[in-house]
Amino acid sequence: MRPANFDSLTPLSLLARTAAVFPGRVAVVHGDRRLTYREFEDLVHRMASALKASGLEPGETVSFLSPNTPALLAAHFAVPLAGGVLGAINFRLNPQEIAYILDHSEAAFLFVDRELNGLVQPIAASLKSLRKIVVIDDGIPGPDLAATSYEDFLARARETRVGFTLDDDLATYSINYTSGTTGRPKGVLYTHRGAHIHALGEVMEMGLGPASVYLWTLPMFHCNGWGFTWAVTAAGGTHVCLRKVDPPLVFDLIEREGVTHLCGAPTILIMLANHEATRERRFPRPVLIVTAGAPPSPRIIETMEEKGARIAHVYGLTETYGPHTVCAWDPAWDSLEPAERARLRARQGVPYAPFGEARVVDDNMADVKRDGATLGEVIMRGNNIMKGYFKDPAATESAFKGGWFHSGDLGVMHKDGYIELRDRKKDIIISGGENISSIEVENALYQHPAVLEAAVIGEPHEIWGEVPVAYVDLRPGAVASESELIAFCRERIAHFKAPKHVRFGPLPKTATGKIKKFELRKRAELGLTNQ
Amino acid sequence: MRPANFDSLTPLSLLARTAAVFPGRVAVVHGDRRLTYREFEDLVHRMASALKASGLEPGETVSFLSPNTPALLAAHFAVPLAGGVLGAINFRLNPQEIAYILDHSEAAFLFVDRELNGLVQPIAASLKSLRKIVVIDDGIPGPDLAATSYEDFLARARETRVGFTLDDDLATYSINYTSGTTGRPKGVLYTHRGAHIHALGEVMEMGLGPASVYLWTLPMFHCNGWGFTWAVTAAGGTHVCLRKVDPPLVFDLIEREGVTHLCGAPTILIMLANHEATRERRFPRPVLIVTAGAPPSPRIIETMEEKGARIAHVYGLTETYGPHTVCAWDPAWDSLEPAERARLRARQGVPYAPFGEARVVDDNMADVKRDGATLGEVIMRGNNIMKGYFKDPAATESAFKGGWFHSGDLGVMHKDGYIELRDRKKDIIISGGENISSIEVENALYQHPAVLEAAVIGEPHEIWGEVPVAYVDLRPGAVASESELIAFCRERIAHFKAPKHVRFGPLPKTATGKIKKFELRKRAELGLTNQ
Repeated sequence: MRPANFDSLTPLSLLARTAAVFPGRVAVVHGDRRLTYREFEDLVHRMASALKASGLEPGETVSFLSPNTPALLAAHFAVPLAGGVLGAINFRLNPQEIAYILDHSEAAFLFVDRELNGLVQPIAASLKSLRKIVVIDDGIPGPDLAATSYEDFLARARETRVGFTLDDDLATYSINYTSGTTGRPKGVLYTHRGAHIHALGEVMEMGLGPASVYLWTLPMFHCNGWGFTWAVTAAGGTHVCLRKVDPPLVFDLIEREGVTHLCGAPTILIMLANHEATRERRFPRPVLIVTAGAPPSPRIIETMEEKGARIAHVYGLTETYGPHTVCAWDPAWDSLEPAERARLRARQGVPYAPFGEARVVDDNMADVKRDGATLGEVIMRGNNIMKGYFKDPAATESAFKGGWFHSGDLGVMHKDGYIELRDRKKDIIISGGENISSIEVENALYQHPAVLEAAVIGEPHEIWGEVPVAYVDLRPGAVASESELIAFCRERIAHFKAPKHVRFGPLPKTATGKIKKFELRKRAELGLTNQ
Repeated sequence: MRPANFDSLTPLSLLARTAAVFPGRVAVVHGDRRLTYREFEDLVHRMASALKASGLEPGETVSFLSPNTPALLAAHFAVPLAGGVLGAINFRLNPQEIAYILDHSEAAFLFVDRELNGLVQPIAASLKSLRKIVVIDDGIPGPDLAATSYEDFLARARETRVGFTLDDDLATYSINYTSGTTGRPKGVLYTHRGAHIHALGEVMEMGLGPASVYLWTLPMFHCNGWGFTWAVTAAGGTHVCLRKVDPPLVFDLIEREGVTHLCGAPTILIMLANHEATRERRFPRPVLIVTAGAPPSPRIIETMEEKGARIAHVYGLTETYGPHTVCAWDPAWDSLEPAERARLRARQGVPYAPFGEARVVDDNMADVKRDGATLGEVIMRGNNIMKGYFKDPAATESAFKGGWFHSGDLGVMHKDGYIELRDRKKDIIISGGENISSIEVENALYQHPAVLEAAVIGEPHEIWGEVPVAYVDLRPGAVASESELIAFCRERIAHFKAPKHVRFGPLPKTATGKIKKFELRKRAELGLTNQ
């Protein structure tokens, strides 16, 4: 092959093509600020040039602690264009956790949004590989930090166009750390090729095009925004930045900017559905909401559909660049009752067209029966599976055993080939030798009108080994007693699956809106519960 | 990389995924016959197994002479699955031309639709590499031919599933011959990777999805149906087969099957717009018509839009797997007047998102001015450019000189980055040292209400070198004289560009509906004109 007929696969070519084709279209909206694709590409090249001028060596990590801003979006192209590896870090971690990630990824540069300076102050002096800190002032105040300003940094750019050749599209593009609910977070490596193919998958499955307007309700630090940083750009759509999810602002932006797509964990859907100021608001036109992170309850799906959302339920992990499978919608289902539609939509398991396969297997890696009942582990393979964990060959080998990526998630395979997740392997409750899916119990609780959010964990029990215990946050003003909720569940699921206790109060969550079950478990161990 | 995170790129994985995900959806409609994706995949594997059982060796060519039938569609997956190379041959060629292609491509197997047996009879005995002929009886009679029946052939299958590993996705997938308007046809080699990426491009740009219904008005032998054989399959859409373009049947199928997409040269659009029995018919819902082969005249675009079509104007060649660039539609243009919309839509030049670049360059490969006036050659590169010409290293080197594929097409670059084709390099008319675009003259003629089709060529002239001469087919019942049409053109374009002569009568066409200008030129040389 030769240059005329062989190109490496990389998101960089997708930006180049869009900027060439739609130079005048709006690439990024951030408050009152608007960047066309020409301006956005200029920013990307300026940032890349400034990185090189500041001494970035090929393969070094450039980390970001930032909400969803144009600077972080530009870094999704500028850092690899400069030959570096992008490390977008979850800013809801504490300084010590952030220091661990910066050290482990051997970050040479750190860009911090000023509002988050306080996270860096206590660790700045002790970071092992860091050579430079750049503070981005996005108009939100924050404590002082000895650092270069973003403007001064960009002024170091020597070229307006940074040339680029990619010898191997399996080179690392970005590093994303797992949430580390079990042990230390692991550094998941993404490649140019994987990111490119993942982006095309999102464009195809989510129907992105030049008329798409994407609202950044999902943090970009989460699997590089599930690949939408690259996908929306590839499609020539518009990115609408958002520093944090404030439901009234979300509804305002959807109206004002003509938003067509957004992503978020079910918790985001719950916020949009239930926030006091927006409870009655509807979308002016259909908005495709891509949701994942935990199976959305049928009830939330139904509520959001009533608001004008179309829900795409996807499933994936940091190790799969975000979404790997989707609830591919059979047009024949359109005419079903809303509750039945919602039940079907709470499943997924259909790999995106350009990705690989997904299976549910037993401990011997044999496929479980397609009966919607037999529990197994979800395993996957394809071009959108991570290269491996950074500096952790043992964990990499273990994740890839038998030639497939092992998700650690438990699910069932329905007879039509769709997967329904039942639990994280570690979240399954084993009571009297029976497996109880915490999600099944949670879905029963979600059917109760007073329940805003619910999480079920297993707690140690002398006789049964474990018993299910529910943590419930009620809707504002709603009332429900422990015995009422237990009885409610017993009407819907097997008695042994119904919670033995219900504990009320707000639930602890991760940066991406996942409920921190490990924290509930810790509380239970420490007796820090309210009964 | 390892099996878990690296897959070769091939259309075969796209079929496997769709069949796994949508086994019960209709893959193929052919008259009253319907195949689900499970049945279609079964057919593909049976055909592949039968090919192997019949002694097909890796890399050997399996040729087809067939209209658009389920058998030919299945071959688009079955032949490469069996390790062979698919050669779909234009059945409007004559037996000697077909023999040349079979011999040159070293075809080992030939599948013939019974209706076309007469093309093979005179050459069957003398073909050099052919070992086996299979006749497909699709219900249309044809002369007898000593051959295996398709049913007997399929009965040789030994496995229901053919295993497959692809060591190198740059291996040849299919071979497609150029129309050979200048010299012998050349065998253009497509790869697994190129075909996969091209298919994804069609899905993205044309918005194909599981609800898409694609009508086969374009021959599959033309660049493997511009990649829609693979793209519609990748999307999980439905293929509606069609043996030949009969306008009333086309309108019937669009209504009955809910067609959403079709492809065709502008000639197909002219047929649909002007056929007596369908002149008044409208589409029941918008149909996206992808057109290429020659720039459609603004008038035809406008007429088809009135019928309910949306027109996607694309451009490419056999060497680019069919479409490479598209007239990417700026939503802001929706509100323009129809004539202005049609003018914008007659341009293209925007590479599909996952493809490479397109430029218009002068003889030194420098970009021409973006002035919509300076003529240059269109050159392209990307993953959808052929591997090369089979057994023709000299032509391959020449086509790829300077690291780009040279199309031989002439166009101008507009200031917004869109390309307007002006001519094939060899179709440009040079009169008194001035370049005349034959297309510009044709577009002037198309504005005359009596003109159904027009083609302009240069004819030798003592003083001017060449002069433009028009060949015109009038609408049934319409009347126009030579002098009237010349005067009509002079009102619209420079006098030196207006045709010096107009010759009336039906125009000779290629299998794909392109007007055979070389034949008009030959007629002119031989004096076979009507004046």
